Amino acid sequence: MATLFHYPFCPHSRFVRLVLAEMGMEPTLVEERPWERRRDFLVMNPAGTVPVFVEEQGLVVPGPQVVAEYLDETRGLGLDSRRLLPENPAARVEVRRLLDWFHIKFFDDVSNYLVVEKIYKRFMGSEAGGGPPDMSAIRAARANVRYHLRYVGFLAAKRNWLAGADLTYADLAAAAHLSCADYLGDVPWDEDEQAKAWYARIKSRPSFRSLLADRVAGMAPAAHYADLDF
Amino acid sequence: MATLFHYPFCPHSRFVRLVLAEMGMEPTLVEERPWERRRDFLVMNPAGTVPVFVEEQGLVVPGPQVVAEYLDETRGLGLDSRRLLPENPAARVEVRRLLDWFHIKFFDDVSNYLVVEKIYKRFMGSEAGGGPPDMSAIRAARANVRYHLRYVGFLAAKRNWLAGADLTYADLAAAAHLSCADYLGDVPWDEDEQAKAWYARIKSRPSFRSLLADRVAGMAPAAHYADLDF
Repeated sequence: MATLFHYPFCPHSRFVRLVLAEMGMEPTLVEERPWERRRDFLVMNPAGTVPVFVEEQGLVVPGPQVVAEYLDETRGLGLDSRRLLPENPAARVEVRRLLDWFHIKFFDDVSNYLVVEKIYKRFMGSEAGGGPPDMSAIRAARANVRYHLRYVGFLAAKRNWLAGADLTYADLAAAAHLSCADYLGDVPWDEDEQAKAWYARIKSRPSFRSLLADRVAGMAPAAHYADLDF
Repeated sequence: MATLFHYPFCPHSRFVRLVLAEMGMEPTLVEERPWERRRDFLVMNPAGTVPVFVEEQGLVVPGPQVVAEYLDETRGLGLDSRRLLPENPAARVEVRRLLDWFHIKFFDDVSNYLVVEKIYKRFMGSEAGGGPPDMSAIRAARANVRYHLRYVGFLAAKRNWLAGADLTYADLAAAAHLSCADYLGDVPWDEDEQAKAWYARIKSRPSFRSLLADRVAGMAPAAHYADLDF
């Protein structure tokens, strides 16, 4: 059986969990705390980041986009109409552009700040940079998320799903990052009805269930977090 | 003819210039200063980043890794043994892992600091964040580059090229980022003979010539920058 090394509130890990669930794959999930820099984990992935997908035969595939490309190449054709990366080169460009948008830009602007400051720092030792959250980082994330929410709404208004007619990796990436911010109550859904309607649709998919069941020890989610009609 | 919107000292742009040259493509080069946030450029790429590759027929392909995947899908098969992304899934994972390593990790740790502080800020207006360099950022980059140079040396010692037997996108990404730091005199080549020997090989390729001819107005490169036997 394959294995996924992940952290429950790492948005890149959440993306891969959604992808695997949409593909009907159920790997063994191993929680990894990347800030602990566990030696055997660093040997596997010198970058020290989650997620890392490991095939039963031992092939190590690190990073959300590398995993997405790999799974499409090795399992994509068998998914037919449920394939998450389209066939057409121009459509692939659009999906990958949005993967970069969420996994790099949204991450740098919003989700990394929120998750590190509000969650990781609770569990990190002080020698690793743990401690109380930096409020200026949280304020920056809360300002930035409004712009990103409008962009999601803009895309959702003109297309069925974010990259076009069908559900793709782009939707799963956007939803993974937004779901982390949403747990923390930091997504102003009322500012964009289109974005909210798109998120309600994706949140209702069976692939989302395990994410909605995750809890940070000692920190309840926003009241509407697991509510499908928020 | 295709067009590449690039900035000469943006490492992501340099990567795509190297890729295009290795593929024998000669697009029109348009210098774009991303910090000016030119309206027509933002319409083309809402992320506002270079590089952006535009096909003669108008298809817009933004971002170094999206361009690399697109060019491999549309031109890769015709390159035969000069293809820059291997066929085998496990080998593709290794190339893409290293693309992430250099385009995200090396960029965040080293090249973005150096290029922004030493070059971009010379040309940015003060309203856009221009001005004198932040020396603490430069010191961080200079400390981090040593670790990355050792990693390049480690890979170069056990393989012919960084990802395996053949030249791949991974070499071009590593060389693109290192070349920016090298222009600024911030690569301690003497600390790693293997990395230096690998860089001397890649720097001697014809695809590198146009990068070695680039100059920042009013700022000469390090003495060995264009020297193939540095």
